[in-house]
Amino acid sequence: MAKVGIIMGSTSDLPVMQEAIDILKGFDIEIEVDIVSAHRTPEKLFDYGKNAHTRGITVIIAGAGGAAHLPGMVASLSPLPVIGVPVKSRNSIDGWDSILSILQMPGGVPVATVALDGAKNAGILAAQIIGTSDKCVLDKILVYKEGLKQKVITSAKEISK
Amino acid sequence: MAKVGIIMGSTSDLPVMQEAIDILKGFDIEIEVDIVSAHRTPEKLFDYGKNAHTRGITVIIAGAGGAAHLPGMVASLSPLPVIGVPVKSRNSIDGWDSILSILQMPGGVPVATVALDGAKNAGILAAQIIGTSDKCVLDKILVYKEGLKQKVITSAKEISK
Amino acid sequence: MAKVGIIMGSTSDLPVMQEAIDILKGFDIEIEVDIVSAHRTPEKLFDYGKNAHTRGITVIIAGAGGAAHLPGMVASLSPLPVIGVPVKSRNSIDGWDSILSILQMPGGVPVATVALDGAKNAGILAAQIIGTSDKCVLDKILVYKEGLKQKVITSAKEISK
Amino acid sequence: MAKVGIIMGSTSDLPVMQEAIDILKGFDIEIEVDIVSAHRTPEKLFDYGKNAHTRGITVIIAGAGGAAHLPGMVASLSPLPVIGVPVKSRNSIDGWDSILSILQMPGGVPVATVALDGAKNAGILAAQIIGTSDKCVLDKILVYKEGLKQKVITSAKEISK
Amino acid sequence: MAKVGIIMGSTSDLPVMQEAIDILKGFDIEIEVDIVSAHRTPEKLFDYGKNAHTRGITVIIAGAGGAAHLPGMVASLSPLPVIGVPVKSRNSIDGWDSILSILQMPGGVPVATVALDGAKNAGILAAQIIGTSDKCVLDKILVYKEGLKQKVITSAKEISK
Amino acid sequence: MAKVGIIMGSTSDLPVMQEAIDILKGFDIEIEVDIVSAHRTPEKLFDYGKNAHTRGITVIIAGAGGAAHLPGMVASLSPLPVIGVPVKSRNSIDGWDSILSILQMPGGVPVATVALDGAKNAGILAAQIIGTSDKCVLDKILVYKEGLKQKVITSAKEISK
Amino acid sequence: MAKVGIIMGSTSDLPVMQEAIDILKGFDIEIEVDIVSAHRTPEKLFDYGKNAHTRGITVIIAGAGGAAHLPGMVASLSPLPVIGVPVKSRNSIDGWDSILSILQMPGGVPVATVALDGAKNAGILAAQIIGTSDKCVLDKILVYKEGLKQKVITSAKEISK
Amino acid sequence: MAKVGIIMGSTSDLPVMQEAIDILKGFDIEIEVDIVSAHRTPEKLFDYGKNAHTRGITVIIAGAGGAAHLPGMVASLSPLPVIGVPVKSRNSIDGWDSILSILQMPGGVPVATVALDGAKNAGILAAQIIGTSDKCVLDKILVYKEGLKQKVITSAKEISK
Repeated sequence: MAKVGIIMGSTSDLPVMQEAIDILKGFDIEIEVDIVSAHRTPEKLFDYGKNAHTRGITVIIAGAGGAAHLPGMVASLSPLPVIGVPVKSRNSIDGWDSILSILQMPGGVPVATVALDGAKNAGILAAQIIGTSDKCVLDKILVYKEGLKQKVITSAKEISK
Repeated sequence: MAKVGIIMGSTSDLPVMQEAIDILKGFDIEIEVDIVSAHRTPEKLFDYGKNAHTRGITVIIAGAGGAAHLPGMVASLSPLPVIGVPVKSRNSIDGWDSILSILQMPGGVPVATVALDGAKNAGILAAQIIGTSDKCVLDKILVYKEGLKQKVITSAKEISK
Repeated sequence: MAKVGIIMGSTSDLPVMQEAIDILKGFDIEIEVDIVSAHRTPEKLFDYGKNAHTRGITVIIAGAGGAAHLPGMVASLSPLPVIGVPVKSRNSIDGWDSILSILQMPGGVPVATVALDGAKNAGILAAQIIGTSDKCVLDKILVYKEGLKQKVITSAKEISK
Repeated sequence: MAKVGIIMGSTSDLPVMQEAIDILKGFDIEIEVDIVSAHRTPEKLFDYGKNAHTRGITVIIAGAGGAAHLPGMVASLSPLPVIGVPVKSRNSIDGWDSILSILQMPGGVPVATVALDGAKNAGILAAQIIGTSDKCVLDKILVYKEGLKQKVITSAKEISK
Repeated sequence: MAKVGIIMGSTSDLPVMQEAIDILKGFDIEIEVDIVSAHRTPEKLFDYGKNAHTRGITVIIAGAGGAAHLPGMVASLSPLPVIGVPVKSRNSIDGWDSILSILQMPGGVPVATVALDGAKNAGILAAQIIGTSDKCVLDKILVYKEGLKQKVITSAKEISK
Repeated sequence: MAKVGIIMGSTSDLPVMQEAIDILKGFDIEIEVDIVSAHRTPEKLFDYGKNAHTRGITVIIAGAGGAAHLPGMVASLSPLPVIGVPVKSRNSIDGWDSILSILQMPGGVPVATVALDGAKNAGILAAQIIGTSDKCVLDKILVYKEGLKQKVITSAKEISK
Repeated sequence: MAKVGIIMGSTSDLPVMQEAIDILKGFDIEIEVDIVSAHRTPEKLFDYGKNAHTRGITVIIAGAGGAAHLPGMVASLSPLPVIGVPVKSRNSIDGWDSILSILQMPGGVPVATVALDGAKNAGILAAQIIGTSDKCVLDKILVYKEGLKQKVITSAKEISK
Repeated sequence: MAKVGIIMGSTSDLPVMQEAIDILKGFDIEIEVDIVSAHRTPEKLFDYGKNAHTRGITVIIAGAGGAAHLPGMVASLSPLPVIGVPVKSRNSIDGWDSILSILQMPGGVPVATVALDGAKNAGILAAQIIGTSDKCVLDKILVYKEGLKQKVITSAKEISK
């Protein structure tokens, strides 16, 4: 069964990354959460990237801030789709460093980048990827999108009062 | 069988988007190429987004430049994973508008954004997504990555001469 | 009689957009306020854009933040002048994404963009547009501009004391 | 009858601004073209802004580059809607100065800003403003938009061959 | 005798501009403070710019924020040296709009731009300009610079303790 | 008699700085041109800054690019007004480094910054500074400004043909 | 024995620079802390830069903000490796000015730039430089890096609970 | 004896990195040049970073462009000082991605970043680092700096003719 690996460079990224955890739990998709620092635990990064697909991980979500090398380095090591979450960490320059060092990967090694601090969307995207081969998850996404719509329609009714 | 829908806002985006076409052909993945302009053919956009998943499309790659709304609007309409390619079109401000209007999607509607003009990586990412449920495609990606490595090793030998 | 349609992507945009509402009420111009989300209610967006001009709307003001597609997509669907208000929403990168994804529309589909969070000016601009065919509104704008001047002159007197 | 005043800071802006002239001619809307430099002919600017609406001008399009003060200063002086075209002139810093000094007008004095070098859209927007009170022009805009659509559909057919 | 005219677009700029007032008072240089809004009181701007040099003003300091046209328009109208202070006003985009719309003046019409919110330096620069023909003021500047040095030397002694 | 010292960091800055030389020659103002590199000839910089005002220099124009320290360091050493010209040199990042490292001087040490590559305006500003105490130069500036106006009026006549 | 000279432009930089002091004390490397302002104490800067290597200093760490000339000017004057710390000071524009005026040094005069407010890394880099010839310091760095790793592994264990 | 390891992500970086090679050859410092791609040869990167200091390398110079992870990842793996050269590669966004993804390293893992395409300065910095323990190299740097000065003085003489 599909499993999403969620990693981040530091526990300080957890408040942002929690949204990915929550959304995937909401879709009843199995997850595995870990701290992997590209710069402080390169061996663990190496091990993680090399073996994730052999351990049953289907999609990887990686969040990091500043000179954020974790998503790109995991994408370098793994054949799985890697979703990168640029985190606006304390030392980031308004998030520009986080975005550019995740987004601007060279030809051959993609990272599926979402918005700054967009961990929620990373979770949804992971679900959509699983949904490409799991009709049940695809249906849940359709339901989720319908829910988004209903919330807007409800709030529109209130505003027009 | 999996099929990737590749759309772009204008024929002027084709030289950039061709790299996605070529890489997917190289992986023997079926593709369907179309011009869909969010701003000039909104009805076609609507139809495309609403029906892609019922027509057998598995992943959508959408490329656009400037105030690039195509990827996000398709993501709004479709439950499929949408990969966005920011194109540095003639009127773009060094690509910043293309990147930000694709990347910065609100919570609930992700676009998997790749680098500026990164259509090649969009193709590889689409293959990786298909590879999550197709062992044969996953193996091709492993082979592709091995090929990238060998090219570097060869060029390294030449430089050290 | 002229009517201005004011739409926004989310109720969280209302504090900013309220200034457009207030200014138009001050000019005694009829308004209609609604929530229309390009990404969560694309069908409503479609319906709104296609029919606004047949429902008696003369000018549309659309406010959104981040990857802000609402103004441009309404401009795609409607023949009416569309005024775009880039909102510096919570997830926006200092407003740059909001501005660029509204301003940088391709040739053929203009959005009349005002300053970041500039809903007040959107309201005045809508009045000016109505004033092009309504002498009474034009006169109100002249009075409004005279009022701006007097306020500065009063404050100048105080400072020179 | 409606008339659009098109002004620019320098003859060097003409190649960009010509697109506004052409589109309005295509819509059979009367235009008046002039060079008005905020920084070199402030008296002419003053005279232009103060009197445009009494001379039969309905909408003003103003193009300028660098520290582009022409659109905002005309908007300061005139009660008419002013459309600003940020021109990427020779000395502009990639157009950022042109955009920000036109877009970021203070509350009270709007400029309807279009994309960098977006004179074509300035022309269309002027037509849309006139179309708010001239059914004939509104119909032309609907035809124009239909034309945009047909061009995309034709090019889409060619690409799918 | 030399006199410095200090103008600003709004009373909200006064807290920033006060530093120019204070420094010039400290140098015993005569000043005249006024509110002149390029966008709300264009006639006053015109009058101010045209007549400042005939009224005994020697140097003009102009502070404004956002699409800041005051310094450049006064420079357009006056033959005097104009010092521009980009103010990081409430609606400014981190000050970038203020800086670029003051700094990037076209050839022929300079504005002597100082740092963002750098009114203190505007005052010193005005004094330096007066000092080019007033030995007494030049000497005060030499004393002022010596004072800056002594403060650093004192703080250096404390830190090395 | 007044004399303007024009310095630049490298001979490669001369094509840009030549405009300052030409404009001042046109005003019959005495100039002295030199190469002073903050980073390669710090002793000469020191000597220049310390002694310029004792050698009869009245105003200093300093042009440099990249991490441009020359204008600020001369301003540190000299009590004279220093005009900084940010040069878009070969290694500059679109001129942003040149601008920011000249403009953003700390409180106490102003540099009168002009536009990117704006050496012409640096020359005019130097003349305006001299004009604060030299009626003859002030008159030349008034004539120069009148000339700018006439050129626009002539080009406006041609365009309206 | 090796000694690191730590200088900063103002005591207001001390809270940031303290991290360099602390890390070097932790490595038992001798330090010397001083305030040297490029713009207010140019003579002291000159003296410091010229003589540091003759006084037993081995590496210089220089922190400054805004138009930050201290690191580059010391590098101009000294043959020693100079590490520059861009400080996000109160008047800095989000740190961009600090970074660019330190990083973008011309060919011939390098400054080893670290991240915005990255004084800790400046300290570690200074230790690494000393470690190139001091086996004992190199070993301490290896221990330090091992410590970084262990902290991540510990926090990873906690998160997986 | 000291040896500098020069690595780059791709042979396309060689024209930029050649300047580091040339300057170090000019200082008679031993070098070793290799291609190591963080994204295509992660195993080689790992091996290089882990063993450089045991193979006699003293300083590492790493050049890369776009999402440039090579310098930071080598710094993660090695206790040696790592000098990062941001390369303005073909797909880089004006170099901003290269700069930010090298410069903005997290606390604990410094990269000594030089200017965009500043390989020459990387070479000089490496020599300065070696010069901290090798008097002969330090003397060569003093001679080199003297040479820079003489070139400016010669060009200054020519310009003043």
